[in-house]
Amino acid sequence: MTRYFEEELDVLKQTLLRMASKAETMIHQSVQALVQRDLSIGEEIALLESEVNKLQLEVDDRCFKLLALQQPMAHDLRFIIAAMKISSDLERIADQSVNIMENTGILLQFPELKPLIDIPQMAEITKMMVRESLDAFVEADAARARNVVLQDDRVDALKNQVFRELLTYMISDPRTIQVGLQLILVARHLERIADHATNIAEDVVYMVEAKDIRHHAEEEKR
Amino acid sequence: MTRYFEEELDVLKQTLLRMASKAETMIHQSVQALVQRDLSIGEEIALLESEVNKLQLEVDDRCFKLLALQQPMAHDLRFIIAAMKISSDLERIADQSVNIMENTGILLQFPELKPLIDIPQMAEITKMMVRESLDAFVEADAARARNVVLQDDRVDALKNQVFRELLTYMISDPRTIQVGLQLILVARHLERIADHATNIAEDVVYMVEAKDIRHHAEEEKR
Repeated sequence: MTRYFEEELDVLKQTLLRMASKAETMIHQSVQALVQRDLSIGEEIALLESEVNKLQLEVDDRCFKLLALQQPMAHDLRFIIAAMKISSDLERIADQSVNIMENTGILLQFPELKPLIDIPQMAEITKMMVRESLDAFVEADAARARNVVLQDDRVDALKNQVFRELLTYMISDPRTIQVGLQLILVARHLERIADHATNIAEDVVYMVEAKDIRHHAEEEKR
Repeated sequence: MTRYFEEELDVLKQTLLRMASKAETMIHQSVQALVQRDLSIGEEIALLESEVNKLQLEVDDRCFKLLALQQPMAHDLRFIIAAMKISSDLERIADQSVNIMENTGILLQFPELKPLIDIPQMAEITKMMVRESLDAFVEADAARARNVVLQDDRVDALKNQVFRELLTYMISDPRTIQVGLQLILVARHLERIADHATNIAEDVVYMVEAKDIRHHAEEEKR
């Protein structure tokens, strides 16, 4: 491996870590806006989203140049392919956080339904999944990546619990329908974020072991 | 370009067209199950999903080998990168159709709310977007791809209309809440399918023109 190539791979790693850190902040802040009923963070989230978008274009561009000029093989090739996929998932995680912010904007027009417990917990797990999947990528640690995949079930279970509970509220008191619906959509966005983190973790396993673990536990994951 | 390479690119195209055709069938059948209140198609959808998953792994594998062994440059490299991204979007479109089928399974437990008009129309537009984006890919036709991107706004507008209308039902008659919620989720899945078709179209423009049009109309798209 040439010195230049090694340095380029390192820049790629750092760029993806920056993207992931911004995406994680976006998850945190959008759910904080919801919990604290405070929309003032909206502008910062919009700014972070545009930074994540720019970083995605940068990652794709770096990967393209590495593929074109360096003709990487085996592990290095898998690394670059994984980097492109990961940047795409991180960008979609950022999008989902913006969606959560939009739901929050609508539901804050209505009175508070109940103190939120499961949704902040979903946010905690999904943030951890994003962070762990990226650490697994940087460390090329397949065991750590597999552990992220396992967390996905916890998020799904919480989402189902949120659905059931909110439906009960909505049926017993129609005045809660609009808030309930927005909260259900927030839970759904967090579930999608967990799916994207799972995709990243699966890409890491592929990169490390040259073994594709997608579509094996697909039914549970969706 | 070697004869072998040319043939391999052609196989890639055919494989993606097969994936897209299956994904399109899945959109059609899942929404037909909803409209006709008939779950009997469920098994076929599950089968199609597993075929789409297998085709995705096949596409990724073929792309990897082409990158490793042929060291493609410029347009060919962009073609292969686009093929990997497109297969990922098609797989997610298939997933969303399975989600629609799941929503349908729940809502058929309840009486019919109203004849469905906007949701079947959303399905028609999204199917057309999937087909057109793939045709644009195969023909390397950037104008056709840009036209797909423009359709996304129509799907978003329909989704908003569905949301508003169902919310009115749900608020005026709480017995409609469970069905209304599932229909809202179906509309949301169709909107996501349109987003994936838009991603594909943007990848086609990039492939043809080496020009990245992502993140320019992002705000309208989400």
